[in-house]
Amino acid sequence: MTSDLETLATRLRDFADARDWDQFHTPKNLVMALAGEVGELVAEFQWLTPEQAASPSDEVLARVRAELGDVTGYLVRLADRLGVDLVEAAHAKLDESERRYDPATYRGSARKAPQLPD
Amino acid sequence: MTSDLETLATRLRDFADARDWDQFHTPKNLVMALAGEVGELVAEFQWLTPEQAASPSDEVLARVRAELGDVTGYLVRLADRLGVDLVEAAHAKLDESERRYDPATYRGSARKAPQLPD
Amino acid sequence: MTSDLETLATRLRDFADARDWDQFHTPKNLVMALAGEVGELVAEFQWLTPEQAASPSDEVLARVRAELGDVTGYLVRLADRLGVDLVEAAHAKLDESERRYDPATYRGSARKAPQLPD
Amino acid sequence: MTSDLETLATRLRDFADARDWDQFHTPKNLVMALAGEVGELVAEFQWLTPEQAASPSDEVLARVRAELGDVTGYLVRLADRLGVDLVEAAHAKLDESERRYDPATYRGSARKAPQLPD
Repeated sequence: MTSDLETLATRLRDFADARDWDQFHTPKNLVMALAGEVGELVAEFQWLTPEQAASPSDEVLARVRAELGDVTGYLVRLADRLGVDLVEAAHAKLDESERRYDPATYRGSARKAPQLPD
Repeated sequence: MTSDLETLATRLRDFADARDWDQFHTPKNLVMALAGEVGELVAEFQWLTPEQAASPSDEVLARVRAELGDVTGYLVRLADRLGVDLVEAAHAKLDESERRYDPATYRGSARKAPQLPD
Repeated sequence: MTSDLETLATRLRDFADARDWDQFHTPKNLVMALAGEVGELVAEFQWLTPEQAASPSDEVLARVRAELGDVTGYLVRLADRLGVDLVEAAHAKLDESERRYDPATYRGSARKAPQLPD
Repeated sequence: MTSDLETLATRLRDFADARDWDQFHTPKNLVMALAGEVGELVAEFQWLTPEQAASPSDEVLARVRAELGDVTGYLVRLADRLGVDLVEAAHAKLDESERRYDPATYRGSARKAPQLPD
């Protein structure tokens, strides 16, 4: 069975193939494109109060959705070029976070053990 | 049927609930966390030549995979808080890109029509 | 007379020369390094409330100062490689912003004319 | 005597005052704006080859200069709000880098001691 992300990765691959864009879609370039799109996503939120950001207007949400689509596209494309399974990688990091941040110690606290990388 | 991303979103939600971290996981904060993790991902590639980045060593790839896991985690968490379906959003943007960049005109060219936002 | 930024640019150039790092300090790599450092700066603020971010503790401020130092270093190094005067470039953009956002219309409003790029 | 950066900081402060934008220019928001502008700067370089990026066309250089102006503006504004001297902070980090990366060991090598944060 093919997952949603694999279908998207295949479509992105075909899109690049049809335009001979594989030459531009190197990992180094794709990670820059991802950073650029995340910058646009951040810009949508920069002047909003926390309250406005938590309940965005339809207009803001439409723009945010478009930026999230761009970010997802480049992220999936990058992972495809590198042969990384994004969902597996996220679960592996979450396994680690569950060990590192036990609920009793970190409950309600944003403070993280300073010696640990984020 | 539940998709891979929905399962991941649910696990992230439970992880935050167990630590009472929903208060920190506001859209504004999550988009910053996403930007921070993308910064770490970019840093993995910054001194590599295009060739090294295209064929990373096992050691580099392991670190890249971990950063991709972090990026995916925050991206899925952010989308979950905003009620956005990432895969749908990516397909919608790809629909647009297919209309905008017809293969005949843009074949082998990184140049994009300057009047269009990226 | 030599400005503060020119002195810093010269010291960064000598630092790279002494280590034969010019080969790594290409504009493409430096812009990635800058993005990576800005990611670290963003991470310092991600879980802070607006109030905490406005009055950071000495410990947070020391880390922020270090990240601002890294960001400034890569920004000055990048501009030096490209032959761009950062202060002149900032004043030129500010000239433009003064024309675009007249005080009467934009007073107290974060809303910007949607047709204008940021 | 007033340095170039102080003059720029003062002009940015007056610009914000005249529009009552201090309420938006909180450190948290400004660091997001900085990340957004750095994203735009990265986007200018993402599809360029290393050679193209090292010798940008006049058209590209003009856009890069504008983005560098935006980045500098937000960086100086953020530092002003936090009371940080950017040039001093950069020199302090460079003092550290000179101790950490002695020329003999690191000559011509992008490899950094893995136990050290970047």
